[in-house]
Amino acid sequence: MSVEQLVKDICQEARRAARRLAVLPTGVKNQTLLALAQALEQNAATLQEANAKDLAAGREAGMPAAMLDRLTLSDKVIASMAQGLREVAALPDPVGEVTGMARRPNGLLVGRQRIPLGVIGFIYESRPNVTVDAAGLCLKSGNAVVLKGGKEALNSNLALAQIIGRVLEENGAPQGAVRVIPTTDRAATTALLKQDELVDVIIPRGGESLIRFVANNSSIPVLKHYKGVCHLYVDQSADHDMAVNIAINAKCQRPGVCNALETMLVHAAEAEEFLPRAAQALMDQGVEIRGCPRTLALAPSATAAVEEDWPAEFLDLILAVKVVDSLEEAMEHIARYGSQHTEAIVTSDYARSQRFINGVDSSLVLVNASTRFNDGGELGLGAEIGINTSKLHAFGPMGLAELTTTKFIAYGDGQVRP
Amino acid sequence: MSVEQLVKDICQEARRAARRLAVLPTGVKNQTLLALAQALEQNAATLQEANAKDLAAGREAGMPAAMLDRLTLSDKVIASMAQGLREVAALPDPVGEVTGMARRPNGLLVGRQRIPLGVIGFIYESRPNVTVDAAGLCLKSGNAVVLKGGKEALNSNLALAQIIGRVLEENGAPQGAVRVIPTTDRAATTALLKQDELVDVIIPRGGESLIRFVANNSSIPVLKHYKGVCHLYVDQSADHDMAVNIAINAKCQRPGVCNALETMLVHAAEAEEFLPRAAQALMDQGVEIRGCPRTLALAPSATAAVEEDWPAEFLDLILAVKVVDSLEEAMEHIARYGSQHTEAIVTSDYARSQRFINGVDSSLVLVNASTRFNDGGELGLGAEIGINTSKLHAFGPMGLAELTTTKFIAYGDGQVRP
Repeated sequence: MSVEQLVKDICQEARRAARRLAVLPTGVKNQTLLALAQALEQNAATLQEANAKDLAAGREAGMPAAMLDRLTLSDKVIASMAQGLREVAALPDPVGEVTGMARRPNGLLVGRQRIPLGVIGFIYESRPNVTVDAAGLCLKSGNAVVLKGGKEALNSNLALAQIIGRVLEENGAPQGAVRVIPTTDRAATTALLKQDELVDVIIPRGGESLIRFVANNSSIPVLKHYKGVCHLYVDQSADHDMAVNIAINAKCQRPGVCNALETMLVHAAEAEEFLPRAAQALMDQGVEIRGCPRTLALAPSATAAVEEDWPAEFLDLILAVKVVDSLEEAMEHIARYGSQHTEAIVTSDYARSQRFINGVDSSLVLVNASTRFNDGGELGLGAEIGINTSKLHAFGPMGLAELTTTKFIAYGDGQVRP
Repeated sequence: MSVEQLVKDICQEARRAARRLAVLPTGVKNQTLLALAQALEQNAATLQEANAKDLAAGREAGMPAAMLDRLTLSDKVIASMAQGLREVAALPDPVGEVTGMARRPNGLLVGRQRIPLGVIGFIYESRPNVTVDAAGLCLKSGNAVVLKGGKEALNSNLALAQIIGRVLEENGAPQGAVRVIPTTDRAATTALLKQDELVDVIIPRGGESLIRFVANNSSIPVLKHYKGVCHLYVDQSADHDMAVNIAINAKCQRPGVCNALETMLVHAAEAEEFLPRAAQALMDQGVEIRGCPRTLALAPSATAAVEEDWPAEFLDLILAVKVVDSLEEAMEHIARYGSQHTEAIVTSDYARSQRFINGVDSSLVLVNASTRFNDGGELGLGAEIGINTSKLHAFGPMGLAELTTTKFIAYGDGQVRP
């Protein structure tokens, strides 16, 4: 069978499963999630045996230590996958909620009912634990999911798929609900991106090049962000202790993620006092500062920023720093170089906090808090499958509710249009 | 200047205008809408002069009477455009609404604020009144709009654009907020579809071939429906008077629109009594019936349906009719041949009404009412810019709220991630 036919068959099976999943009772979904958590723990040895093959192949291919680490299904990672499933089981079911039910002048009772999206195509890189996270979120939200993982994790993903399939069957959920595409052929990804009759949405997770490939080759709508060029603006009236604390947290707590800080903008009125202190504190954490000329004058150990530094997502202990003369200049800079992901202001001025909140066009805008909070769990969604910076459907982190949509429902007693 | 550069310049101007529109006070937006309504009425003669050129060219090119009629800016059409703007001015402003504001355990106050989408690319065919409808809805929802109308209406659209531009300027709204692409070159459409850095969403309105062209050539997300293959299912327990009445309304009241009925499914237990009567009533209205073999046995003046009739959008006084043995068979038929647009059941059975509502995957599912109600005005949205049958963002009719999205906002007092 060709790769194209294989992918199409899997998507067709997922489409059939999606019709059953859409009306599957919440109790069955939760029971399946809890049974899967238990099955992962009970089959840890089998999973680790398959994972060992991937790790051996990775080592042979010279995979860097950090990637090998992400690929490893340690006891701790397996326990964390199981715990994640139990948390998703405990979240409320978004499907079936009816909102806005109101009677029209002709007596028709009209509202919106929350429904699953249908079939989700999920494309991701090496971490096999993402397979289980995505399966859990999609199952709970009533969606079938077709998973295309990285080639480095194929054995691990197939072992996970086998356990998931068995648990689905034992608990009366359709087996087509979670399907791993069992090949490392990149043609399978391309084929998946063309199944617009069968797949409702594509969610890619990985580096910018993977996401650009998906966006450029998909005939299915894609929920995605390319990168997070997050800004912290230290306003005229900022509390300096707070600003230093937030800058260090946002830059250093986990520099390799999309909500980490990449550029700090400092109001000129604060720069003289604030910048030398902030620069020292950041450099004590190992941060390299790339500054504008006014920054360099105040923090001589910084290096000179070049134009390419302003739109850069460093994903590393590097921070671009610029002195600005006004809140407006800060917002202009963000509009020009930002990625509409996450921006924060530190201020003690009410009116300026509101101007920043209303004027900045990003999926999360914060006052006096770290950019690291752009995360489904941190914002109260319970869990997340990704962050979307296209404006459509869900701008920002996507949890269970964002994996659903609404249809209109209407109860009449014979109404016709005059 | 090349067409590509022209389109890019217009989109860049729209993007700049969008930043101002996003924070434009509701009062300014409403005042502009009311002033535009007045300006259209006051400049009726100028509009009709430009329109006369389009009509003359249309006549010369042998345009059919129905199309000439849709192209005409009569006094009545101008009055109706002005009235539409006044209605949009009277609707509540969706922008700025904050929902779900709640305090996280760490004290961070998190919620969602409703914001415009940004820049909307609107591509449509001959009716120039759509230019004003789209401009009004986009302005009220805080979006800039780039309009690409049909070549038949270019003079009319340019005259409208001139009045719109003057009114925007006089009322302190950015002129780039509403821009008509001033060319009939199809390369302009293709160029618009590639402006993914500047345009947030494309909404096409027109025939299936226009919409397929847009979907296949756009690198920007598209909100669209290809067609409406709407079903009426007459259930075992249906009230026959009601079912006949709804079938006639859904099929005949306006057969050329997307929410008109195309296929009627009749439960076998009702067919013997219901079908002869319904067929007669429909034929009295000039409807041609294309039936399955069991339908033909009960309504001999019907013709035999072929496979192509089941997925057909006739947009004419033609109805496909099929006898089914169960509610499940009806839902299977809809899942196989439907377009996820609008489906209705006529029943007096509570449990079966719920199974249909929950099991049918369409943007509007009705019980005991006509499919013709799938319309923003009829469902209580106030006005609509189109109907979307992709599941993302807005499934069904799109009004002002559906021309917006939400961003997360967070108020902290120094929170960082542990």
